Amino acid sequence: MKRLLANSIPKGTTDVFGVEARTKDYVLGKIKDVYEKYGFEPLYTPIIENAEVFNGHHGEGEKLLFKLLDKENNELVLKYDSTVPLARVVSMYDTISMPYKRYQLQQSFRDDSVDKGHFREFIQCDCDIVATESLISDAEIAMIAYDGLSRIGFDDFTIRLNHRKIIQGIAEKSGEFSKDAILEIQRAIDYADKVIKNGVEGIRTDLSKRGISGSVIETICEVVQLIRNTPMETLDNIEEYFSDYPVALDGINELKEILSYIPHKMISKMKIDFTLARGADYYTGFIIEAVINDIKLGAVLGGGRFDNLVEAFSDKKVPAVGMAFGLERLLTAMDELGLTQKLDILPDKILILENSEFKKEIISCATYLREEFDVSILYGEHDNDYVLDYASKGGFQMLLELKEKNLLEITFLNDDHQYMHKVIDKFLSSNYEYVEKTK
Amino acid sequence: MKRLLANSIPKGTTDVFGVEARTKDYVLGKIKDVYEKYGFEPLYTPIIENAEVFNGHHGEGEKLLFKLLDKENNELVLKYDSTVPLARVVSMYDTISMPYKRYQLQQSFRDDSVDKGHFREFIQCDCDIVATESLISDAEIAMIAYDGLSRIGFDDFTIRLNHRKIIQGIAEKSGEFSKDAILEIQRAIDYADKVIKNGVEGIRTDLSKRGISGSVIETICEVVQLIRNTPMETLDNIEEYFSDYPVALDGINELKEILSYIPHKMISKMKIDFTLARGADYYTGFIIEAVINDIKLGAVLGGGRFDNLVEAFSDKKVPAVGMAFGLERLLTAMDELGLTQKLDILPDKILILENSEFKKEIISCATYLREEFDVSILYGEHDNDYVLDYASKGGFQMLLELKEKNLLEITFLNDDHQYMHKVIDKFLSSNYEYVEKTK
Repeated sequence: MKRLLANSIPKGTTDVFGVEARTKDYVLGKIKDVYEKYGFEPLYTPIIENAEVFNGHHGEGEKLLFKLLDKENNELVLKYDSTVPLARVVSMYDTISMPYKRYQLQQSFRDDSVDKGHFREFIQCDCDIVATESLISDAEIAMIAYDGLSRIGFDDFTIRLNHRKIIQGIAEKSGEFSKDAILEIQRAIDYADKVIKNGVEGIRTDLSKRGISGSVIETICEVVQLIRNTPMETLDNIEEYFSDYPVALDGINELKEILSYIPHKMISKMKIDFTLARGADYYTGFIIEAVINDIKLGAVLGGGRFDNLVEAFSDKKVPAVGMAFGLERLLTAMDELGLTQKLDILPDKILILENSEFKKEIISCATYLREEFDVSILYGEHDNDYVLDYASKGGFQMLLELKEKNLLEITFLNDDHQYMHKVIDKFLSSNYEYVEKTK
Repeated sequence: MKRLLANSIPKGTTDVFGVEARTKDYVLGKIKDVYEKYGFEPLYTPIIENAEVFNGHHGEGEKLLFKLLDKENNELVLKYDSTVPLARVVSMYDTISMPYKRYQLQQSFRDDSVDKGHFREFIQCDCDIVATESLISDAEIAMIAYDGLSRIGFDDFTIRLNHRKIIQGIAEKSGEFSKDAILEIQRAIDYADKVIKNGVEGIRTDLSKRGISGSVIETICEVVQLIRNTPMETLDNIEEYFSDYPVALDGINELKEILSYIPHKMISKMKIDFTLARGADYYTGFIIEAVINDIKLGAVLGGGRFDNLVEAFSDKKVPAVGMAFGLERLLTAMDELGLTQKLDILPDKILILENSEFKKEIISCATYLREEFDVSILYGEHDNDYVLDYASKGGFQMLLELKEKNLLEITFLNDDHQYMHKVIDKFLSSNYEYVEKTK
């Protein structure tokens, strides 16, 4: 017996085809559209990077790097994210004009445990604005979050906002002033945010598990209780609470300015949330996240201002702000909401059956229709059930069969075929006769 | 002094940004459009594959695999091509309906010497039709080659066709019947094709260097001299020459049938060429390649029928045919022809200057314009020369400056601004007054 070759893929990776691949393309297309609408440019960086580029940026994350050697024994890694490559690019090419607004929809790789449902190869959809401190850029990041989710087709979502300086204010008000303590509190809030149940009791339990001091926990609980329905009310509400802590007031004022630039309809989906901290250590200002309401999934996007990362590669101080949509999470959310079906994601594809009698006529009919439609010829002879199954899986809207040289039999495969009917009617009338067949 | 982090990338990889990235997106978009026009579906397979998937398919090529180990010491490789993953996918998932038409625009990796200008990470744009022997599918591959190059914007190109069975006929007519000898001759022709100067003398010199026997060389030279201007004339012309070699006649008849399905305007760019062999051993029938005329670059696409590859992963016989555009070559050719400039590749992007006096008004103007255009705000204050340079690099067509709350100053950055003028005129008239400024 012949030994068959291995047909498996590494854990934490996927093959994506059929309707899932079309949905993935749909979402990537929408994200790209939104980024370009806001004036961002595409950037492509290599999957393989020199190992030293990723040294010293991700703390614990560095253990997750995939490492390899090339033939000349150069140490390489697979890119862990798109933020560090951006910092590298900005420092390498002085032909890039600043401020630089780039987006990057590319794979990242982390050799993580897959038990938690993590992928080891996944797509990040990053956009970042480099070399400006203008808070208009922070506002645009929040607007992109809103526009991106809306254009994909979500309407029930919440965009959560916070500011690292307010977290620092919480630490200071609790008597913690050292950098390390602030970092510890940030991380604890981020941890608690991910496991949080409801209300203040949950925060108390989760934070004490992480060894956070009682005074910090009480400050957090107090601040959380000052949250109101609208972002501006919340910020007004905590201003007095932090009146002796200039760093917190800075954060509050920055958030206020950012919000002042954002259209009202977008603000209605936004919420200031003091239990939001974001995982990455490198954020320095405004932070943002979004969740799809009523779905247990975690954030579908996240980002913030990071004013110190790029300077690790360069002498210059290069402030930056950005965010990333998580493609896999978005697709999961769409799936749970049945959005793929509800949205008109599938193309107007036509399937033409091969027919041994009229091969040349079939190909010229397909060529003619391709001026306006996506057309596939189903090669070979197949029974009716197979054809209908094939057409359904492929997302085809119509089935065409050539009965005579210029006579087409049309089967509409979608009940909502008014549009197709009209177009085909007009389009075919000049060249082909046709009859309609019922499924 | 602070130690800066490494800012370099591995040899044979690239960072792509600015106009190059936009051109890359343009070409990928055109190729995707053509593939979908012909009814192909997207497929994504992982960058990291289990090492054994790539064992035994690429002969010498296997030495070029990038190898790595994950944390659990599983042997992984970076994907070498998209053909072997396709074969794996077809054998793994019985939910995929046959015939399966998929396209895949993804990176491949080869740890090759970069001296020859090779990339070690590059994008292949594959389309393949799996599980049909219908020669209509071969014809569609040739039509896609034509349509793809045309849509990208090339008009002076040659699509070269041959058939592996005609090469076998050449071997047999020269007295060589063993599989190994035929493979040897194939490879020698492929080698000669790549270095060939002009005419029969070149073939003689190049092939004898490869140790090919005199009788084979003479047969090749005889066949080459039977090539005529049109594919059909050429095939008619060699029919008698191969009348005693059924395998060659098979190849000739298949090519004739394939050509009979292809529209005349496409045939006019096609040529039968007996010095075309293609590198991969796995082709079994029709083979195809295209070159942009008058550019020294080699093939910008290549493909053919491969009826035995997929069965390495499966018990079943799974005939297949396909091709791939070489993205990097296409971009080089566009560059040499100045096509990026000639084609209207750049978007209608608008640049709005930030102005500390009217921040809110600027962002609401940008939001308003984004309903129809791509709009970027240039954060910060910059002098006029900087602004013009920034706009030119970014491909912006217009510059807007808010002089008063509802008064815009417009600078057209492109001489051919009739369209923009008209649209802006109509679009802005309801909300903004404007004055035009000369560059």
